[in-house]
Amino acid sequence: MGRAHSRALYLLRTLEDDPVAVPELRTICGRDTQRLAAMQRRYGWQHQTTDWQVITEDPEIALFVNAASNELHAQPTIAAANQSKHVLCEKPLARNTAEAQAMLLAVEQANVVHMCAFNYRFFPAIRLAREMIEAGELGQLLHFRSRFLLSSGADSDTPETAWRLRGQTAGSGVVGDVLAHHVDLARYLVGEPTTVDALTRTWTPERHGIQVDVDDAVVCTMEFDGGAIGTLEASRATPGHVLDSVVEVDGSHASLRFEVQRLNELVLSRNGSRSTIEVTAPAHPFIGMWWPRGHGIGWGDSFVHQARHFLGAVAGRWDVEPHGASVVDGLRCAQICDAVLASAESGTRQAIPAPAGKQEVHS
Amino acid sequence: MGRAHSRALYLLRTLEDDPVAVPELRTICGRDTQRLAAMQRRYGWQHQTTDWQVITEDPEIALFVNAASNELHAQPTIAAANQSKHVLCEKPLARNTAEAQAMLLAVEQANVVHMCAFNYRFFPAIRLAREMIEAGELGQLLHFRSRFLLSSGADSDTPETAWRLRGQTAGSGVVGDVLAHHVDLARYLVGEPTTVDALTRTWTPERHGIQVDVDDAVVCTMEFDGGAIGTLEASRATPGHVLDSVVEVDGSHASLRFEVQRLNELVLSRNGSRSTIEVTAPAHPFIGMWWPRGHGIGWGDSFVHQARHFLGAVAGRWDVEPHGASVVDGLRCAQICDAVLASAESGTRQAIPAPAGKQEVHS
Amino acid sequence: MGRAHSRALYLLRTLEDDPVAVPELRTICGRDTQRLAAMQRRYGWQHQTTDWQVITEDPEIALFVNAASNELHAQPTIAAANQSKHVLCEKPLARNTAEAQAMLLAVEQANVVHMCAFNYRFFPAIRLAREMIEAGELGQLLHFRSRFLLSSGADSDTPETAWRLRGQTAGSGVVGDVLAHHVDLARYLVGEPTTVDALTRTWTPERHGIQVDVDDAVVCTMEFDGGAIGTLEASRATPGHVLDSVVEVDGSHASLRFEVQRLNELVLSRNGSRSTIEVTAPAHPFIGMWWPRGHGIGWGDSFVHQARHFLGAVAGRWDVEPHGASVVDGLRCAQICDAVLASAESGTRQAIPAPAGKQEVHS
Amino acid sequence: MGRAHSRALYLLRTLEDDPVAVPELRTICGRDTQRLAAMQRRYGWQHQTTDWQVITEDPEIALFVNAASNELHAQPTIAAANQSKHVLCEKPLARNTAEAQAMLLAVEQANVVHMCAFNYRFFPAIRLAREMIEAGELGQLLHFRSRFLLSSGADSDTPETAWRLRGQTAGSGVVGDVLAHHVDLARYLVGEPTTVDALTRTWTPERHGIQVDVDDAVVCTMEFDGGAIGTLEASRATPGHVLDSVVEVDGSHASLRFEVQRLNELVLSRNGSRSTIEVTAPAHPFIGMWWPRGHGIGWGDSFVHQARHFLGAVAGRWDVEPHGASVVDGLRCAQICDAVLASAESGTRQAIPAPAGKQEVHS
Repeated sequence: MGRAHSRALYLLRTLEDDPVAVPELRTICGRDTQRLAAMQRRYGWQHQTTDWQVITEDPEIALFVNAASNELHAQPTIAAANQSKHVLCEKPLARNTAEAQAMLLAVEQANVVHMCAFNYRFFPAIRLAREMIEAGELGQLLHFRSRFLLSSGADSDTPETAWRLRGQTAGSGVVGDVLAHHVDLARYLVGEPTTVDALTRTWTPERHGIQVDVDDAVVCTMEFDGGAIGTLEASRATPGHVLDSVVEVDGSHASLRFEVQRLNELVLSRNGSRSTIEVTAPAHPFIGMWWPRGHGIGWGDSFVHQARHFLGAVAGRWDVEPHGASVVDGLRCAQICDAVLASAESGTRQAIPAPAGKQEVHS
Repeated sequence: MGRAHSRALYLLRTLEDDPVAVPELRTICGRDTQRLAAMQRRYGWQHQTTDWQVITEDPEIALFVNAASNELHAQPTIAAANQSKHVLCEKPLARNTAEAQAMLLAVEQANVVHMCAFNYRFFPAIRLAREMIEAGELGQLLHFRSRFLLSSGADSDTPETAWRLRGQTAGSGVVGDVLAHHVDLARYLVGEPTTVDALTRTWTPERHGIQVDVDDAVVCTMEFDGGAIGTLEASRATPGHVLDSVVEVDGSHASLRFEVQRLNELVLSRNGSRSTIEVTAPAHPFIGMWWPRGHGIGWGDSFVHQARHFLGAVAGRWDVEPHGASVVDGLRCAQICDAVLASAESGTRQAIPAPAGKQEVHS
Repeated sequence: MGRAHSRALYLLRTLEDDPVAVPELRTICGRDTQRLAAMQRRYGWQHQTTDWQVITEDPEIALFVNAASNELHAQPTIAAANQSKHVLCEKPLARNTAEAQAMLLAVEQANVVHMCAFNYRFFPAIRLAREMIEAGELGQLLHFRSRFLLSSGADSDTPETAWRLRGQTAGSGVVGDVLAHHVDLARYLVGEPTTVDALTRTWTPERHGIQVDVDDAVVCTMEFDGGAIGTLEASRATPGHVLDSVVEVDGSHASLRFEVQRLNELVLSRNGSRSTIEVTAPAHPFIGMWWPRGHGIGWGDSFVHQARHFLGAVAGRWDVEPHGASVVDGLRCAQICDAVLASAESGTRQAIPAPAGKQEVHS
Repeated sequence: MGRAHSRALYLLRTLEDDPVAVPELRTICGRDTQRLAAMQRRYGWQHQTTDWQVITEDPEIALFVNAASNELHAQPTIAAANQSKHVLCEKPLARNTAEAQAMLLAVEQANVVHMCAFNYRFFPAIRLAREMIEAGELGQLLHFRSRFLLSSGADSDTPETAWRLRGQTAGSGVVGDVLAHHVDLARYLVGEPTTVDALTRTWTPERHGIQVDVDDAVVCTMEFDGGAIGTLEASRATPGHVLDSVVEVDGSHASLRFEVQRLNELVLSRNGSRSTIEVTAPAHPFIGMWWPRGHGIGWGDSFVHQARHFLGAVAGRWDVEPHGASVVDGLRCAQICDAVLASAESGTRQAIPAPAGKQEVHS
């Protein structure tokens, strides 16, 4: 993730003429000084450190991007906000609701621009889906359906990612790491979930000598405030699927489908016709800054759009919301993920607390 | 459905040289004598009647195929069994578990061959999927996932199908009519579900002046006896999808996907490769009786395979199970569907009673 | 092919209430009396014979369907026409232009209804494509593109199909057997070709001890009378493709794509959107006689539509053309295939003789 | 194209730790000083100029990337080579064979590293296809098939691209601009073409008041030195296709398909199974430098791979060929394109001169 964010910040210069929105890459933080040296050289970071407080206390730094592991989301982000830095924190925002609430408190008190890095919102096809839904093209929203299936738990664990296997360090397993993406998209596209019932599984209780105490797989059904119902599913232990991340919305007029492996496409179904829209025209969201029509972008470019959104919000060009996810959205997601876990543990459907402020309902 | 069964019985003659397995079409029953006259002329039925007892009491008749509406499943099927006729009854077997139990009692006491017409088992690709699972190609089964989305509730209701809108006549809505197909496939491919939690919706409470008191849409999660978890979903009110019926199974080695709209294909995913198998080779299930390799069959042909299976079982060539669904399977499905409805009503996860006899576990 | 035609004739009864359009299956002809006995029993043929003249001279017979190997297309069909029988002859109509001309002369002199069995015209999606082109939805037609790739030459040769390997018995190889389908569709959808330049290959010059003297593969470019240009390609020796038969038309407004392996679909592309139309609605061509919306038909059902078209034309309900292929179309195809072969042999582009009568131009 | 090359050079720094392979962006040349200023600011070019000789004569410059319009390919590239600069020139290398020959003479005399920017060779899936072919997975190569269909001629002409409409400035139309990509891939994947027969069309002879004297569309058939045959097709006037660029190779064992709109996928067909390989694993060509498995790259990233290949060849890490296209490849492509045009004009199949040196044959 650090590489994706560094590349995004590095590329902003090539997309903007306004120096206000082009960041200077001041200091990068990490654990391994050799890797930090490489990152410095590659992306032009001026300094490196293994102590995040060097960053949060540097008065020259105005923006703080947190791409650390989950246990290092809350404390450094809060510290940065306390120093009046604008913050962009990776998802899941925190290991649990309590941490997320503390983060929201901090950013609101500091009155800084804040985002949670749900980069899926920055795929052109997802933004287009939102625009079509807002324009009423789907009619009343009836169903949300998603799955996010990964083989990674089976094939790519390394000591460095072992923190993902423990509740203490990760908060949860696939729920916070993977399901969270689709929970956020469900909110972005359909509205606020009101109840959830979930099942979880830990398929391989031991890996690399570590006792896994978090979930490998989750399935759940949700109710939404507008009346829609949904199924969400995530797994990091399905070798059949390297990365199969699909989101679908059915309305009373039409249906949409987005698949991250074909991220330059959006499928609109209605009247017995399933139309693959190539989201590569200059008029499509974000595309104008890239190539001539028809030439697709890559997964990493969603981070460029996100970084640009963050800088643009800091520069006062636009609000973080509704198209970017804020710490408010990160907190909502944490609340929902906690309800998912509570349901799986208790075997009962959980009510999800209503959002603090006024909520947005699509119908 | 009557037409699909008549065509299947009519075509059996073209596929069999053994007269034992070629039915004589004796009597067809229905409500509209004019339509019955047409059916008689077209498929060669010798007689017609509007009174089903004419059939169940005809000593010349050995096989009884029940394709009536749901409220006419139990009584005539039981009457036929009582007269020692072999029975093939449309799905859902009955409006509820109690009716289904009475049917099972009757066919077991009569010791007749009995089937419930879950025709999906007779798609070549579904049979192939089962064979691949049995051969261990998927490894341990982890996930089942299905959706069955129809626009029909929105676009094709007629007075003749109004019985589908009332619990009294239909038992349930989309649960018995549509979800049941996938409940049966879940059992056929993965094993017995042990718990279910469901949500239902009735999107349009009134149609054609009728108060709809059954479900238009359902989502649920299930646990299976082998440890797998699943999501199942059905709707008859999604105009985006004329007929989108997809079943997926993920195992610890590989994943399978079947889509009824591309019924001549089966998708096997593993190792980062998604392989569309064209299930049109002579060595594939059922295909040897059709065309040269590469030439696909149609939806209606699954009924031909099913009718041939029924006749073959009567002729003593093979057992109904495991590849055909018996009244036992129909009862299991009724129990599960009743648990789905009970969960939706109560808001709690329901345990599904274990099957009476020994159960089959795939792992 | 004999089985496909027998099944089609057998099924007509189930689709028609008008006895005029329901054939009586009088006599079937073939080489192997045991197989003929099975065909008789299965489809209800009243008689069997190994001598085709028994049929052509039977005054009780009014319709003659010729599904023999290519060398037996011309003589029996001409004999049947001379006895005033309506004729439906398999494709390619003849081994060469001269034979086809003799056939046309015979059917015109006899004034009988005549068809050449280009069954692709009877896929609902192909008929729909034609209707869309006629309605101007594609604009001016610019490109035709097709390929028909088979593995069969590599995997399914048998002594019984050895006649396909010799010019004497087959006329040509993949050109007449396979390319001919797409030559006919090019004419049906785009118009008359005026020139062709072709390359052929015989990949395996010896099979089963037979010296193959016909083509295994062909590629060609064509010009059409309306100005369009096209590429056509066929092979029976590509193990990568069991049966990959695709036809595409590009116009100045939109493009169409049909793939026989997904024969219930038609793809319409325009404005950056690729729409898969499910050709399974009652309003679509031929579908009204089959299943409820969404339930696809199979390859063999195109023969049912074709047989119904033949009987309907005999009954005076409609003309063979433009939607069915007549012997005139069969002759045109033979002329074009002969030009393909002449081009491949000479290495020069060949002009294709203009049709005798008035021609139809789509633009 | 200038933007794609600038971005690629700019990104090299983020992918390499070896300063030898990281370029310093010295001087950018163009016509519009305002746009040049923006490019300078965005990508960090140190200088700008409207006179290309400033670059070719700057002794501080070691590498020359030519992304100008076709008429400015030969002269500046030759001038740069004469000053001993390594050169990377956009495709088509030149307006015709004669220009290309002069360019080859210059780079060989100067003994510089030289490339022609056929960026398709730098898609991971294309490199993988080449590796699979070399490993014999396809068996003997039988067929090459490609099409490159664009709507751009219909929807995106601007005064700035008007040079594409005249032979004087562009050399040819769609042949050099678009077909050339696939001619190069045909050589890269299958071998040297030996003959070609082509048809061209200019659908709209006048645009923006300019008399178009080049081709809008081309279809052709080719023979290859290993015996394979192929069809190639290109158009810039098919509104049905924004950008539909597909390359297929059929061998005696299996077939491959690559579609640029799904550039992270490669389709391998054999034994009745069509497998979509997700070319996103670290072990796949180029992917190791990007994201974790499963996260696709974009079109522009092929230019990054190409620029890295150029710099790597200059640094002596690897040879330009076989995986990069050199000026030799650019010349071969020019010869073939000239044969295409000569065939279209003369109406006769053209022999393509054999390559000067030894040629590579895949079989």
